[in-house]
Amino acid sequence: MSDTKPFLDQRVMDLVNTYILSNANPETKVAHHLPPEKLRSQIDLTLPENGCSLDELYKTIEQYLTFSVRTGHRQFFNQLWSGFTLPGLLGELFASLANTSMYTYEVAPVATLMEKELIKKLGGICGFENPEGLFVTGGSNGNLQAMMIARNRALPHVKSKGYSNAAELIAFVSEEAHYSFEKSANVLGLGSTNLRKIKTDDTGRMIPEELAMAIEESLEKGKQPFFVGATAGTTVKGAFDPLEDIAPIAKQHDLWFHVDGALGGTVILSPRHRHLLEGLDKADSFAWNAHKLMGLPLMCSILLVREKGHLWKTNSVSGTDYIFHDESYGAYDLGPISLQCGRRVDALKLWLSWKYYGDKGYTERVDRFFELAAYAEDIVNHAPSLELMAPRSSVNVCFRYVPNTSEDIDKFNLRLREELARKGKALVNFARLGEDVAIRLVIANHELTREDVSLFFDSLIQTAESLT
Amino acid sequence: MSDTKPFLDQRVMDLVNTYILSNANPETKVAHHLPPEKLRSQIDLTLPENGCSLDELYKTIEQYLTFSVRTGHRQFFNQLWSGFTLPGLLGELFASLANTSMYTYEVAPVATLMEKELIKKLGGICGFENPEGLFVTGGSNGNLQAMMIARNRALPHVKSKGYSNAAELIAFVSEEAHYSFEKSANVLGLGSTNLRKIKTDDTGRMIPEELAMAIEESLEKGKQPFFVGATAGTTVKGAFDPLEDIAPIAKQHDLWFHVDGALGGTVILSPRHRHLLEGLDKADSFAWNAHKLMGLPLMCSILLVREKGHLWKTNSVSGTDYIFHDESYGAYDLGPISLQCGRRVDALKLWLSWKYYGDKGYTERVDRFFELAAYAEDIVNHAPSLELMAPRSSVNVCFRYVPNTSEDIDKFNLRLREELARKGKALVNFARLGEDVAIRLVIANHELTREDVSLFFDSLIQTAESLT
Repeated sequence: MSDTKPFLDQRVMDLVNTYILSNANPETKVAHHLPPEKLRSQIDLTLPENGCSLDELYKTIEQYLTFSVRTGHRQFFNQLWSGFTLPGLLGELFASLANTSMYTYEVAPVATLMEKELIKKLGGICGFENPEGLFVTGGSNGNLQAMMIARNRALPHVKSKGYSNAAELIAFVSEEAHYSFEKSANVLGLGSTNLRKIKTDDTGRMIPEELAMAIEESLEKGKQPFFVGATAGTTVKGAFDPLEDIAPIAKQHDLWFHVDGALGGTVILSPRHRHLLEGLDKADSFAWNAHKLMGLPLMCSILLVREKGHLWKTNSVSGTDYIFHDESYGAYDLGPISLQCGRRVDALKLWLSWKYYGDKGYTERVDRFFELAAYAEDIVNHAPSLELMAPRSSVNVCFRYVPNTSEDIDKFNLRLREELARKGKALVNFARLGEDVAIRLVIANHELTREDVSLFFDSLIQTAESLT
Repeated sequence: MSDTKPFLDQRVMDLVNTYILSNANPETKVAHHLPPEKLRSQIDLTLPENGCSLDELYKTIEQYLTFSVRTGHRQFFNQLWSGFTLPGLLGELFASLANTSMYTYEVAPVATLMEKELIKKLGGICGFENPEGLFVTGGSNGNLQAMMIARNRALPHVKSKGYSNAAELIAFVSEEAHYSFEKSANVLGLGSTNLRKIKTDDTGRMIPEELAMAIEESLEKGKQPFFVGATAGTTVKGAFDPLEDIAPIAKQHDLWFHVDGALGGTVILSPRHRHLLEGLDKADSFAWNAHKLMGLPLMCSILLVREKGHLWKTNSVSGTDYIFHDESYGAYDLGPISLQCGRRVDALKLWLSWKYYGDKGYTERVDRFFELAAYAEDIVNHAPSLELMAPRSSVNVCFRYVPNTSEDIDKFNLRLREELARKGKALVNFARLGEDVAIRLVIANHELTREDVSLFFDSLIQTAESLT
């Protein structure tokens, strides 16, 4: 416990810089991949009655870094984010140091203005002229809040009286949409069976005709359609639903049209690739995770709403006069439109990063990801032992290894992935496409080069050969 | 935009340490308290097409620190948290550096085990023998999830089929409970009128007899009571509802018994003061904000559930097989029981802090807060110009200045608070108790001494005299 020395010293510097340097070293393992019991034997996790010294604290931090997965390593392809950026880290460090909360302008003056600036900027890019928005706790939460705005719009009495005797509300997403829509249907009390999953084509895009039919069918059954959630960048295939074709269907039936751009929202920053999001300006709301393709530390999620007033109308409640005061520039307070009370300053890291990289930096970043994903696809297409499992839409490449043995191909690919991880050579995830196991490579690290991508496939093929 | 130098250097150290040092200097202003237009003229908030240099980035970070409110200053009493701790900052820094997500053991092995260890530890302290729990996005979110578990327990069909034709569910909290319960009633589709606010006594504690009567009344009207939310540490008065008396009432009617300990949960770490939470072991769930009295950077919130299985049953959904794999120690994954998909490692900072301070450090911390709050109360009681506005229960002291002029007393106290802030001498919040404005002093900074508390009252009385 001890003497209070509340200062950063050289040890912190050294720990951080050594970690970053070793991420760049190809000899460094991406992960140690220990089972829980083994890991427990490496780190003493118990919490003591008496505190420890600062020296001991730094030792445990070192252990934390050693046994954590290196998501900044250039052979980490396991999730929809990867890599390290200095402005992102600085944003987190200084947000923690000043440690304020986003609920009032009074206690977070600069951060409030930064968040508003970012909402204006992102809104403008999306074609929302007078946007409302805020930072939320994740893509799942953005989808939830969009669905909630739609629900409260469809049932104006629900906020005060609850569902009592309302018609059954029906929401529509694609069968490849993120599971958070089902979580949202549960939270909001709609029920998961009232979330209709619309068929997709072989690239993973929602089929608009199927959507139109499903809406008609619900209406015929006396239900009340209220929400369409399209996806810009699905989790497995990286597919973009055809927003331009979905928008008029939603409009025709007066449904709230939300776009989940958790993965693919960032693509709009590239003039070359933003056609994938054509029609976004007709959406009513848009969820965007800057901690994915924009390289910020988790979490950095935004919900944008095209027209002002919806978030306030949906989320504000009474009983808040102990915290929101008209006397203190209350009109600037972001708390009333949020579902959180205390809220971290997630805006600072995005604002600093944007300042540092500029629009151009982000354009280059997105273009580079697409170029490298195309390169990876090319490798798959030219390697006799590899098979592309779905047409590539963006930064995800789904493929598998085809062994020339009689072993079950799915089991083999699971073994292969596990072995790559066990050796610490690469961490890459898998998913099932229909019944088949596909390895899903995600390009999301801005430091990646063609060499890194080649290295990944070399390791994979070598490891596969050693397993057959 | 520029050369990538992804390293921390001496400038970061200097910025951090200078900031911490100047927090401790009584000459430093707590806040600059500029209106939005003025602040905008001080900082260029626009985001550029071309990126900036690292030098420019550090300059803007300096501006951020300059114009942000100093929540670590010893004259900051505005919110339910305050102060700075090194383990907290280190926890945030290294969580960001390793930057993983709490959804799978595979990608967050150490952090998953740390979170489980903390849940076990906190559960044990609360008297929950076999607890389930996880870190959530805030106290509001903890209250929401507790209410959701209760709702899904009361209406087992709601998860799949929605509310259709259910009886009206009624939830009960005190009239001094946090506004997040109303937000939760809205989110969950219960409706705010179905949240009954039970009367409190003059200390701010829920009156159990009033609760029992309200439940009976709801039953007589054919409604379905399902949830009681008690508060351990109300936002304004810091009052603790009598858990021991509420528990049997909840049990008698088979209602879910939740305790919102966002502010007061930490008090259980003090043998001297934990009697305020007597009866907590009979609660079904407990929300706890470690970023308040435990001094961690925002957010650090936990939801504990007494019996295992509720979170899983309530929150897990289908369509998650692309991320949760039985093959990779899936039984350890925390994602299925969470409403988030990607989730920050908030556990690291709490784990490191606990390691550093130990149980004893936290006991001393709580005892010190109570001792200083009693000291502040004493000052109020002995100063002829000050008036205590509510009996003190814990770390909140509600009082007002009584001017010897004919000016409206509420307006005067608002002016007084504003003037203290404008001068940068102290930031302290106010609330309305009935019709009266009360200044609410919160003791939550572990570095505070009696001298700091005295200084606050000296500044306040001096400023008040200068205003009359």
